[in-house]
Amino acid sequence: MNNRRTVVIIGAGFGGLAAARALARAPVDVILIDRNNYHTFQPLLYQVATAALDPEEIGNAVRGIFHDQSNFSFRMGTVNGVDWGKQQIQLEDGDAIRFDYLILSAGAETHYYDIPGVAQYAFPLKSMEEAVDLRSHIMHLFEKAAAFPELIGRGILNFVVGGGPTGVEMAGALSEWFHAVLRKDYPDLDITQAGVFLVEAQDHILPAFDKQLRANALAALHKRGVQVLLNKAVATASVDSVTLSGGTVIPTQTIIWSAGIKGNSLSRLLGLPLTRGDRVVVDAALSVPDHPGVFAIGDMAACQDAQGRLLPQVAQVAIQGARHVARQIDRFLIGQPAETFVYRDPGSMATIGRNAAVVQLANGLKLTGFIAWLAWLFLHLIYLIGFRNRLNVLINWTWNYLTYDRSPRLILNHRWKRG
Amino acid sequence: MNNRRTVVIIGAGFGGLAAARALARAPVDVILIDRNNYHTFQPLLYQVATAALDPEEIGNAVRGIFHDQSNFSFRMGTVNGVDWGKQQIQLEDGDAIRFDYLILSAGAETHYYDIPGVAQYAFPLKSMEEAVDLRSHIMHLFEKAAAFPELIGRGILNFVVGGGPTGVEMAGALSEWFHAVLRKDYPDLDITQAGVFLVEAQDHILPAFDKQLRANALAALHKRGVQVLLNKAVATASVDSVTLSGGTVIPTQTIIWSAGIKGNSLSRLLGLPLTRGDRVVVDAALSVPDHPGVFAIGDMAACQDAQGRLLPQVAQVAIQGARHVARQIDRFLIGQPAETFVYRDPGSMATIGRNAAVVQLANGLKLTGFIAWLAWLFLHLIYLIGFRNRLNVLINWTWNYLTYDRSPRLILNHRWKRG
Repeated sequence: MNNRRTVVIIGAGFGGLAAARALARAPVDVILIDRNNYHTFQPLLYQVATAALDPEEIGNAVRGIFHDQSNFSFRMGTVNGVDWGKQQIQLEDGDAIRFDYLILSAGAETHYYDIPGVAQYAFPLKSMEEAVDLRSHIMHLFEKAAAFPELIGRGILNFVVGGGPTGVEMAGALSEWFHAVLRKDYPDLDITQAGVFLVEAQDHILPAFDKQLRANALAALHKRGVQVLLNKAVATASVDSVTLSGGTVIPTQTIIWSAGIKGNSLSRLLGLPLTRGDRVVVDAALSVPDHPGVFAIGDMAACQDAQGRLLPQVAQVAIQGARHVARQIDRFLIGQPAETFVYRDPGSMATIGRNAAVVQLANGLKLTGFIAWLAWLFLHLIYLIGFRNRLNVLINWTWNYLTYDRSPRLILNHRWKRG
Repeated sequence: MNNRRTVVIIGAGFGGLAAARALARAPVDVILIDRNNYHTFQPLLYQVATAALDPEEIGNAVRGIFHDQSNFSFRMGTVNGVDWGKQQIQLEDGDAIRFDYLILSAGAETHYYDIPGVAQYAFPLKSMEEAVDLRSHIMHLFEKAAAFPELIGRGILNFVVGGGPTGVEMAGALSEWFHAVLRKDYPDLDITQAGVFLVEAQDHILPAFDKQLRANALAALHKRGVQVLLNKAVATASVDSVTLSGGTVIPTQTIIWSAGIKGNSLSRLLGLPLTRGDRVVVDAALSVPDHPGVFAIGDMAACQDAQGRLLPQVAQVAIQGARHVARQIDRFLIGQPAETFVYRDPGSMATIGRNAAVVQLANGLKLTGFIAWLAWLFLHLIYLIGFRNRLNVLINWTWNYLTYDRSPRLILNHRWKRG
């Protein structure tokens, strides 16, 4: 009936969406598989966790995104493994999906580095449900503190955030939420008793930025009351405290673990060579060695630059990798050889809060403060998928900005991590 | 320190909020207790379940609503009972809260009438979490139908809705969602195979409306493909079917039980006389007999009209009751006697879908079609709490209207009712 080739893409993150989109005009059938029926705009998960945005504003139904792409179909399902001989994806629900080309783009998952207690007690922040759970947990602690103020002395309003760029954004957002919004929600509570601790193993935050911008970000965190603990690592976590390297103990019921990631658990099911951090080994064209027609991109892949250094696990690497791989499939279909993937780093940005961000572009341009924050807002609005999402996010951000109020602070579907 | 009287209000529904607000200038301390930290705009829950609105758009943090009311405080907690002797509310978390005046406004909960299988297999629609669960369940069935079309013959795209006004609105919204939105999401699926069945025990729908409007609503349902089964009741429910009175069996995995309600389970813990449907018996002033200073309002109370008929369990009865009770407390404080509560019925409205609604006002005005639908939209926007919520809801409704698209169709936190 149909001798078109089938391209299967695993994962509807930035990489998977970009790959499917880039294949819109290719003479292939595209099947995108994801365990969720929606794409998660991961860079803004921390804003869901801090009640600045609704889950639905950073999630977008995959089928809706591709309404207009006729060679596209979606399959919701969890991948159990790949039968390389039969060229089939095995799904948890028993189904099998045949492919001619395969793009592995399942992303990353939280890495707890086997630190005692962390997997059990820390809150990860990689999925929508984790963000909503964290929001509920934080709100619930404030309700508890209002009802039983004696618990504040036992640390229920201490929030410990692991380092890394997401940790910096999370710490800034938390502190701002507490002081600008929750202060008004809990007039009887002394909000200065809420402590935000940013634990960073290195001697500086935001390694992707230059010294001046790091200092600027650090000052912005200090100004917001965030206690930045440099050269410290989490040694152990328990139900009501965290112990740092050096022995400092912080009483807390909230350790936010946005620090570590490793390749999606799928990578360990594939029988493919992995690097440290469970990233699938790829060649310079992002092909998986010895598996013709199989590619890996984004957080799940060990993409390297010309010097052999692993590329960072960020959206831009996934998106550019996706477009490269789509182009390679186009070339293979007409018998052309593979090209080397060249990553163009557009630069980095991070926001610490209201009117405060740092931007460092590849062309050397650096921005701080209000201008950087506007640039950050603008870029994230552009990248958000769907006009309605953009409009709602714009309204919510404007509302938050003008009123110091935040609507979606609902305690929903609370699944306790502890008793 | 303070010899002001304390008014405790249980429940942050329409009645509880209105009572707290009406006491803003009274020389009392108001404590509002709810198990959730937010108010749920229940009349629009069915729109969350059908992915027209986000949960955060019809939920509003209680503390935020009362930022400007200095005699107000909020306590999140589940009420275990009332110690009438000590005049104390007992909370599940062990705390006790003393009151001088008490307003019982905990609302209603789903009533399954002991019909075999219904409590186990039907989906209730009284809380935000139930609405999100139902949305996830429906979306999941469509994903299943797309992957395994053979299941359609076994009824996974049949949706059975219990009667009552919410059932009418739900059936219309479901059918429209399927035909206007999901048809595009699932181009390979024959959406006409999705069946919506409205099961109504009486020989007509919408008893609050006159014959002409009922006929209009019925025609609007038929036009949308809803199969209305009059004079039928659910006899039994199972994991994959529902059996109606008369023996008709409809294969389905989705029975939406918006039909029956009874007083909140709290009413059974109070040791107070109850009517059928677990509503607290009140006198003509909404006072609980033999309990001076204790009132019950809204869905939880057996409010009667002058003819001794029970008032309907709708928002307006709760709101007017709340204002009446707040006025009585004001009067008691200055030694005046109680007044009789007089309910003024403003009329009824129900929407069946796009451009289709019926409105019947107390002054005799009747509206149908587009005008009625606009009136319905306008009124619900006015009653929604919070300017931001209104703006977001307006955008989402406009977006839905213009594009036949709906954003929040995410499968979140799916808690299966079945295996």
